[in-house]
Amino acid sequence: MKIVCSKENLLEGVNIVSKAIPSKTTMPILLCILIEANDGRIKLTANNMELGIETIIDGEISENGIIALDAKFFGDMVRRLPDGFITIENDSSMKTTITCSQTQFSLLAKTGDDFPYLKHLDKSDSMVLSQFTLKELISQTTFALSDKDTNKIMTGEYFHVKENKLMAVALDGHRISIRNILLNDSYEEKKLIIPGKTLNEISKILSGDPEKEVRIYIEKNNVMFEFDNTIIISRLIEGEYFDVDKMITDNYSTRVDVDRQSLFNCIERSTLFIKEGDKKPVVVNFTENNAEIKIRSEIGAFNENIDIAKKGEDLTIGFNPKFIMDVLKVIDDDTISMCLMGSKAPCFIRDEEKNYIYIVLPVNFNSN
Amino acid sequence: MKIVCSKENLLEGVNIVSKAIPSKTTMPILLCILIEANDGRIKLTANNMELGIETIIDGEISENGIIALDAKFFGDMVRRLPDGFITIENDSSMKTTITCSQTQFSLLAKTGDDFPYLKHLDKSDSMVLSQFTLKELISQTTFALSDKDTNKIMTGEYFHVKENKLMAVALDGHRISIRNILLNDSYEEKKLIIPGKTLNEISKILSGDPEKEVRIYIEKNNVMFEFDNTIIISRLIEGEYFDVDKMITDNYSTRVDVDRQSLFNCIERSTLFIKEGDKKPVVVNFTENNAEIKIRSEIGAFNENIDIAKKGEDLTIGFNPKFIMDVLKVIDDDTISMCLMGSKAPCFIRDEEKNYIYIVLPVNFNSN
Repeated sequence: MKIVCSKENLLEGVNIVSKAIPSKTTMPILLCILIEANDGRIKLTANNMELGIETIIDGEISENGIIALDAKFFGDMVRRLPDGFITIENDSSMKTTITCSQTQFSLLAKTGDDFPYLKHLDKSDSMVLSQFTLKELISQTTFALSDKDTNKIMTGEYFHVKENKLMAVALDGHRISIRNILLNDSYEEKKLIIPGKTLNEISKILSGDPEKEVRIYIEKNNVMFEFDNTIIISRLIEGEYFDVDKMITDNYSTRVDVDRQSLFNCIERSTLFIKEGDKKPVVVNFTENNAEIKIRSEIGAFNENIDIAKKGEDLTIGFNPKFIMDVLKVIDDDTISMCLMGSKAPCFIRDEEKNYIYIVLPVNFNSN
Repeated sequence: MKIVCSKENLLEGVNIVSKAIPSKTTMPILLCILIEANDGRIKLTANNMELGIETIIDGEISENGIIALDAKFFGDMVRRLPDGFITIENDSSMKTTITCSQTQFSLLAKTGDDFPYLKHLDKSDSMVLSQFTLKELISQTTFALSDKDTNKIMTGEYFHVKENKLMAVALDGHRISIRNILLNDSYEEKKLIIPGKTLNEISKILSGDPEKEVRIYIEKNNVMFEFDNTIIISRLIEGEYFDVDKMITDNYSTRVDVDRQSLFNCIERSTLFIKEGDKKPVVVNFTENNAEIKIRSEIGAFNENIDIAKKGEDLTIGFNPKFIMDVLKVIDDDTISMCLMGSKAPCFIRDEEKNYIYIVLPVNFNSN
């Protein structure tokens, strides 16, 4: 194989596929990026068996061929080379040289014979989102996923497509994120649970350009995302998802409108005396036009009052401060609405149109 | 005690004295910042018994007093408070409240009765540098100090003042940094060894303003730095320093002039295949107008040629790449000169005027 690419193109490609390199594995070949040069195309591929990524990069092929290079060293070599055109060439013993101007790295490549190639999905059943919408959706929901494998379904995000609507749901048993998106076209009903890790890696690769599309293809156990020059294939999580409609209610006895940034700053401050894993709740006392936010630990106490607009009953409720902050971080609105039904019932943070619904369960607190 | 300061002033003061808070200690009081309000002055002090720092901050005193507050929590509270004026007040039980607008933290302070107060040095013997010069000097030399306590003297930087000259020397047995500074005044001869940690903390506090002075006072075992509103007192390292003049020579058989940034980039690249602690040398082969830079490990090989101007004999020499990079990082000149006397002799990197002399010992290599 002999190819020439610009450093910029090569580095972009390596960065994209490296998202599918596992941090550890018992199969050394999975730590490699497969470089294929044939049919006039240079393709990079990585595959951690859950998630596979391939991308086509611009460049010139002098000699067709296939090699597999350790992803970490390959990336570091490309990053450290001077700007310019990079030549990658291997001899029959798989000794590979990577050259740019007066600089040359050499190392042994693998043949890639044992590399697990990606199988593309059938393209009959697809849906389309803009890169912007998908990137936003991911950042606005996946934080609520569980990172524990004890309940596999909670590590995945539920996509429910019905006609021209997509509902995305993430939950971990303590909180729920729901985003409702209007699609440009109508589709047959689809329900799928996409691993959170897949979505988070895709989000890093997506440009976020509202003018660019992502095409999503779905098969029974797999999903394929196609955008720009890149294809990402992931397993789906099997199983029946929770009944989301049952979790949502429009009943509330207290509604509080509050400046999002003020509330965020206040709750962030409140956590100062709380050690990680301390499970100390922040206690919020909603009265007329005022929220008093308190937290108390062995180290010290915090107290702050912020302005609110309240309708309905006064209420004191305890929260895990991180859960409230996570929600406030991903909402764009300047003012948010909290809908409450008492100190033991979930708190709903949502907009009028229900483009977003965040549900946070309360935490018991000792009133003091 | 009751005082009011702007968040900005208070935070600056806390950041300054926090440099003398130990990372661990058997004396809990050393983890505190002492706040003294009397004689119309608000003074913050911290002292880790090697290094003590005090600084005066602007503010209003409503009630004189002294308290000691945990430095970490105090700093975090001030940082998290909104911008504005902060009130610090304690009651007779040492319950201390820190208030800004609608936000209040409270925690228990210590009395500071067991706090080790700083003893100021006699001001009869002093010297003056600009803040810029001292800050530069520290960043250009201390990297060559030893971080191992096995030879205490190598953890300290040697200051030798003679007439209107200051020579600063740092060495760790493998390399030497020397900077020669012209002073505005002449002084009696002084020799002192200042702990590297002291200098590095001072460097973080110095503004680097060429118009602002640092006044340095010296006693037998202590040194005091005075600048802006801050006083820093440190122990000196006892002992006789190495004979620096004996280490310097003007004999060389090869002189190489090379573009500093090109050499740095090349050596940085060369380390890719070297694991931390591998002790693999980078091998440099100086020939007419060319330096070939090579490194080889089990993982792979690196090779690059860069342009040089050489006088004298051809030479192949091995270096610890980090040691050469450390030197190249702190020199401002675009072109540097390397003076060499063979593959077993130290390499001198220095300017004509000998404002700086860096000496790096070579490393054995297998020519291949």
